[in-house]
Amino acid sequence: VNIRQQTIGIVGDGQLGRMLIPAAKELGFHVVVLGPTENSPSGQYTEQIYGDFRKTEAVLRLGERADFVTFEFEDANAEGLMELEHRGVHVCPSPATLAKIKDKFLQKELLSRHGIPVAPYCSVSSRQDVVEAAERFGYPVVLKARLGSYDGQGNARIMDAGDIDSALTKLEGRELYVEGWVDFRRELSVVAARDIHGNIATYPVVETQHVRDVCHTVIAVNGEEDTGAHRKAVANADAVLDKLEGIGVFGIEMFEIMDGSSVLVNEIAPRVHNSGHWTIEGATTSQFEQHIRAIAGLPLGSTEMKCGAAVMVNILGRRNGPAGVSGLEQALAIPGVSVHIYGKHETRVDRKMGHLTAIAGNRDEALEAAQAARELISI
Amino acid sequence: VNIRQQTIGIVGDGQLGRMLIPAAKELGFHVVVLGPTENSPSGQYTEQIYGDFRKTEAVLRLGERADFVTFEFEDANAEGLMELEHRGVHVCPSPATLAKIKDKFLQKELLSRHGIPVAPYCSVSSRQDVVEAAERFGYPVVLKARLGSYDGQGNARIMDAGDIDSALTKLEGRELYVEGWVDFRRELSVVAARDIHGNIATYPVVETQHVRDVCHTVIAVNGEEDTGAHRKAVANADAVLDKLEGIGVFGIEMFEIMDGSSVLVNEIAPRVHNSGHWTIEGATTSQFEQHIRAIAGLPLGSTEMKCGAAVMVNILGRRNGPAGVSGLEQALAIPGVSVHIYGKHETRVDRKMGHLTAIAGNRDEALEAAQAARELISI
Repeated sequence: VNIRQQTIGIVGDGQLGRMLIPAAKELGFHVVVLGPTENSPSGQYTEQIYGDFRKTEAVLRLGERADFVTFEFEDANAEGLMELEHRGVHVCPSPATLAKIKDKFLQKELLSRHGIPVAPYCSVSSRQDVVEAAERFGYPVVLKARLGSYDGQGNARIMDAGDIDSALTKLEGRELYVEGWVDFRRELSVVAARDIHGNIATYPVVETQHVRDVCHTVIAVNGEEDTGAHRKAVANADAVLDKLEGIGVFGIEMFEIMDGSSVLVNEIAPRVHNSGHWTIEGATTSQFEQHIRAIAGLPLGSTEMKCGAAVMVNILGRRNGPAGVSGLEQALAIPGVSVHIYGKHETRVDRKMGHLTAIAGNRDEALEAAQAARELISI
Repeated sequence: VNIRQQTIGIVGDGQLGRMLIPAAKELGFHVVVLGPTENSPSGQYTEQIYGDFRKTEAVLRLGERADFVTFEFEDANAEGLMELEHRGVHVCPSPATLAKIKDKFLQKELLSRHGIPVAPYCSVSSRQDVVEAAERFGYPVVLKARLGSYDGQGNARIMDAGDIDSALTKLEGRELYVEGWVDFRRELSVVAARDIHGNIATYPVVETQHVRDVCHTVIAVNGEEDTGAHRKAVANADAVLDKLEGIGVFGIEMFEIMDGSSVLVNEIAPRVHNSGHWTIEGATTSQFEQHIRAIAGLPLGSTEMKCGAAVMVNILGRRNGPAGVSGLEQALAIPGVSVHIYGKHETRVDRKMGHLTAIAGNRDEALEAAQAARELISI
């Protein structure tokens, strides 16, 4: 036996890569990340290739070093990825799958074509198109950029006709579409994985709470599998993974609409997802290990919870300037609290600087512990 | 707020350091390790200073970079460590605590002086001393080196008087003592931590099984706290930590003697311990995070189990040569199994190349899963 150590290449150098790296290394892989940042969150854990992942040349340099290429940021140069596939590198999810997801309008088209419930939407290319869409769906609506948006960047709410011009100005120069407003009871999310054989493993449905369009709190409770909304959410997730044919972990954000009659798919992320960070402490297999297993051709792990409830709260910056953690001593005194600091050198208002997870016997205890810990930490 | 990132220095570059590193980084620390090995298990995760930790100069180089210094291998240069303490570096456990433990004869003296039960022992400096001790304790006895022994290195069994000469030859040139043979029912181990305020947190007692004096299997079962042997083991551990006054995690190996009447302390390790690896998946706080919390002045985390049972099995080399992992695909298909490969480049018979942990609802299920997975992996 003399098996060469295999290398996983990760596009991006942020916190998602940072959390994928130990999962990969513990399974015996070497890891190389691609990104522009000196002493990046990922680069603090492994070898980094410095470069702009939007450029073909940089993606090819990563691919030369890797047996498997994956993403913590899906906006990598598509031409480079296709060339890597052509050269025999396992790119997961594949450029073909990414193409179906990257453009949020095409993503909606895919979902609705397969009967997966989504909010009403339509493509727009003029002010008049926006007016007509808003009148058809009824105000308010949301104007969205088709490409390159995340964490509320690239969205503009239109409460009435008077907001249209400012929304168009905010998103000027980008391809756009309009979505009807969803009055939701709760935002739900499902993290699920698909392996190379097509097997699907789905984590428990979680409730997500956003503040200023940024994910703030994620609540996972054991034993709620049989409630109606959760069953619908899982059915959506399974259908999404089935139609995408992508390999790896996906995060699928959904709305449970106000009257409880349906669960709509809002957005798919072709990667490990903020709504799955709780799995590090709370599930038998973390979403990070699950992703590495999937892309490397290994079997998926158990997605069972190993606690009554887990609550994750993002540690978002509350000021601008050099980062510095304080309050850890107080926060870690709360039983069941685990803290993850991402190692970013500059903090900014609402920037994701870390997260914490509290595990406990039930939802209320976990929520209370997580929120109390969050209030104690400053960064 | 502008708090400088603090640095933890780890003496040693092996697998224990490798597992301490992510625990430290997630809490926001930078980590530097000291060791001689190119592309070492620890160096694959963080910055490494190359050097021989038995030399003063190397220990001082590590200390110049670190706010806290700790150990994955306790045989560091004592003079260097004392100088670092003198310079204001937090060395945990302290050189004073290490001195009480490093010499196994002095360790026994400390334990027996404080009424902590140990096997009969006595210092020997001649063949005649060994003969007298063996006659006093009764054959068999074990001849042991006072310094630098681990995993059965530095021990020689003496079944009868005919073995004395070969035992003395095996351990020639070392300071020695003799221990009476313990007929044990089970080997137990307790991992416990002490923080800077003197608080002690104790993990559940585990059963350990050794093969050829190397730890092979560790079994942790939830809800066995109240059995007599477990209560005695915890009392021993608390007494040990109380008397040592050391800060950080300690592994305390014990014998439950055959008639069940008492639990003897066999050996103390002043560091994270092989019998605590199961805590990564099985406990609320892993022993690695616990150690980082303790030495960095943070509060200790919960030591509760988050599963019915956890079984850890070491992945020991079965041949000599370049390392290469195979069988992962089969092993990871067993639900509840997590694998940790240490990234060592050369495998050797009985060398610790990795470990795996199975978590399950009860002891039998976990044991079966772990043993089945172990049989499938080759390295």
